[in-house]
Amino acid sequence: MKLGILGGGQLGRMLGMEGLPLAIDPLFWEPEATACAQLVGEHLCAAYDDPAALAQFAQQVEVCTYEFENVPSPVLGAIAAQVPVYPPLAALEVSQDRLTEKQLFARLGIPTAPYAAVDSEAALRDAVASLGLPAILKTRRFGYDGKGQYVIRSEGDIPAAWQALGGVPLILEGFVNFVREVSIVAARGRDGSTVFYPLSENVHRDGILFTTRARPGDSQQPQAEAIAGKLLAALEYVGVLCLELFDVNGTLVANEFAPRVHNSGHWTIEGAETSQFENHLRAVAGLPLGSTACVGFPALVNLVGTLPPLASLLAIPQVHVHFYGKSEKPARKVGHVTVRTHSESEREQRIAQVIELMQESR
Amino acid sequence: MKLGILGGGQLGRMLGMEGLPLAIDPLFWEPEATACAQLVGEHLCAAYDDPAALAQFAQQVEVCTYEFENVPSPVLGAIAAQVPVYPPLAALEVSQDRLTEKQLFARLGIPTAPYAAVDSEAALRDAVASLGLPAILKTRRFGYDGKGQYVIRSEGDIPAAWQALGGVPLILEGFVNFVREVSIVAARGRDGSTVFYPLSENVHRDGILFTTRARPGDSQQPQAEAIAGKLLAALEYVGVLCLELFDVNGTLVANEFAPRVHNSGHWTIEGAETSQFENHLRAVAGLPLGSTACVGFPALVNLVGTLPPLASLLAIPQVHVHFYGKSEKPARKVGHVTVRTHSESEREQRIAQVIELMQESR
Repeated sequence: MKLGILGGGQLGRMLGMEGLPLAIDPLFWEPEATACAQLVGEHLCAAYDDPAALAQFAQQVEVCTYEFENVPSPVLGAIAAQVPVYPPLAALEVSQDRLTEKQLFARLGIPTAPYAAVDSEAALRDAVASLGLPAILKTRRFGYDGKGQYVIRSEGDIPAAWQALGGVPLILEGFVNFVREVSIVAARGRDGSTVFYPLSENVHRDGILFTTRARPGDSQQPQAEAIAGKLLAALEYVGVLCLELFDVNGTLVANEFAPRVHNSGHWTIEGAETSQFENHLRAVAGLPLGSTACVGFPALVNLVGTLPPLASLLAIPQVHVHFYGKSEKPARKVGHVTVRTHSESEREQRIAQVIELMQESR
Repeated sequence: MKLGILGGGQLGRMLGMEGLPLAIDPLFWEPEATACAQLVGEHLCAAYDDPAALAQFAQQVEVCTYEFENVPSPVLGAIAAQVPVYPPLAALEVSQDRLTEKQLFARLGIPTAPYAAVDSEAALRDAVASLGLPAILKTRRFGYDGKGQYVIRSEGDIPAAWQALGGVPLILEGFVNFVREVSIVAARGRDGSTVFYPLSENVHRDGILFTTRARPGDSQQPQAEAIAGKLLAALEYVGVLCLELFDVNGTLVANEFAPRVHNSGHWTIEGAETSQFENHLRAVAGLPLGSTACVGFPALVNLVGTLPPLASLLAIPQVHVHFYGKSEKPARKVGHVTVRTHSESEREQRIAQVIELMQESR
């Protein structure tokens, strides 16, 4: 099957790699000439507003998906008029705007942080008064990895926050006093069948995901599945979705969802019976979904900014290395490792070894 | 690292796929335009006796390996004059000729079937008289998957056997009355460190490998490791090697070795901590070798001739599908599945389900 993928970063690359043995052959539409996914599939190197590229792409592919959520939705709409697009356009559009996303959560009875739309400095002052401080001002669109965010701790921060982000639609979110951040990766097939991975427990550093530990059997798994299940059903979703949640003393509060495979699910490549990438491909290709059960005790450590020497990483037992083929750059995700062990304590030991190595090689 | 690979079949393809996350970037030198490995690396499409291709290849790659043993050894020799070639040329050359291979086994004190070189019909008669019947006449070179072999059951078969194979150097091998066929996949690093996978227990059909079950903890594991270890050391080997053995009531008798990754080791992709492909890459790239321990109860079933419908295969739990992207053709290996379960009985059940599906879809 020829699968069209919008985007050509590491998520596309990992999708492509897992597609090969299933005879799913990707065509990446990605404007960046050096896109790291191009090694594992055909590369249509063109701007997303190029009508000739659109025609060529839609003509070549049987099904279309995307690997990042800032795809221009009109382009996806034009493709959808010609070939099936999964996940559905509506899911993408909701996820692209923090306000509509929060509104959907509210409509489904899913708890979120308190929020208010902000379109002027005056509206920001009102929102601060109503939500209290601290609070986070965010762009409604195009934020990722902590970008497009400003933490307001006192009223004195308001002008600077407005200065930094104002001019585009914004949202102010109240602080959620969480004990941990988790995410749940789920997949829904074309036939409506749904599977959920064990919870990912996530630790961020400088706004970027740093480590994830799989938590099979977590007491909040049923709560997370119930929330994600509502979302999948409401969106008539097809594909993999990742929902980020705050654990507020046992109650899960939705943060945001991504209509795609997600960094916090990368441990599934070696650490689950079927990876999130394979399950996404199975879902969009109309194939039966695979088991999400854990294999061993998996975790992921992101390699951010720089890559430690390969030989040193491989010398650590139970470590599986994924370099993305991207140039090193501060705050850029350039790879990850999966740790897969036989026990919890062994997992912590391996994570510590990887982190130590990263610090040495910085 | 740019890794040159001679050959571009499914073994090259799987090497290439496992190289990507390690930043090992393959260049396949493969005369066949439709080579299935070309999706995962650069493809130098040229005859092996093309001097311009040789110059281009040797100039581009840092290290060279090969994925089939019928590589013309002079070509490899010419490459070796410019860049390191692993496994070493001597290993390839020994393995290319069943007679020199048997002679090496003998020199190392490794038991084999009784054998005799055969270069004429008269020599064949003498060999039959000396080894007894039944016996197998084989071409010394270029045989694979049961090709280039003739079973002689009575003296009356001699003329037909000679007719079928005569004219090239031959070897007659006495029948070995084995209870099972096993193989051991081993890897040796540039630094001489060596790892061994658990024994593969192999079942052939029509001369082609059909199923393999990993047998960790097998009572003959130490014997197999001792034999393979001698071979690796004698050849100053670097890379993965597979040694096929007959189990003759508890004594292992060497059949042949392949100086490369091997079909009977494909279960290691999902069924071992580190796959044979990754360990081959680690070895030839001078990286530390990885653990060969089993993950669950792994087995492989080859998909020969035709591919069952993908959706039906994926509907069987605990099955991991590998289609090679080759056209279907009788007796051609077009894919395999790995079965990985939590118990022996579950493994047998899954293997039976896959075989049943293959029979239905024939």
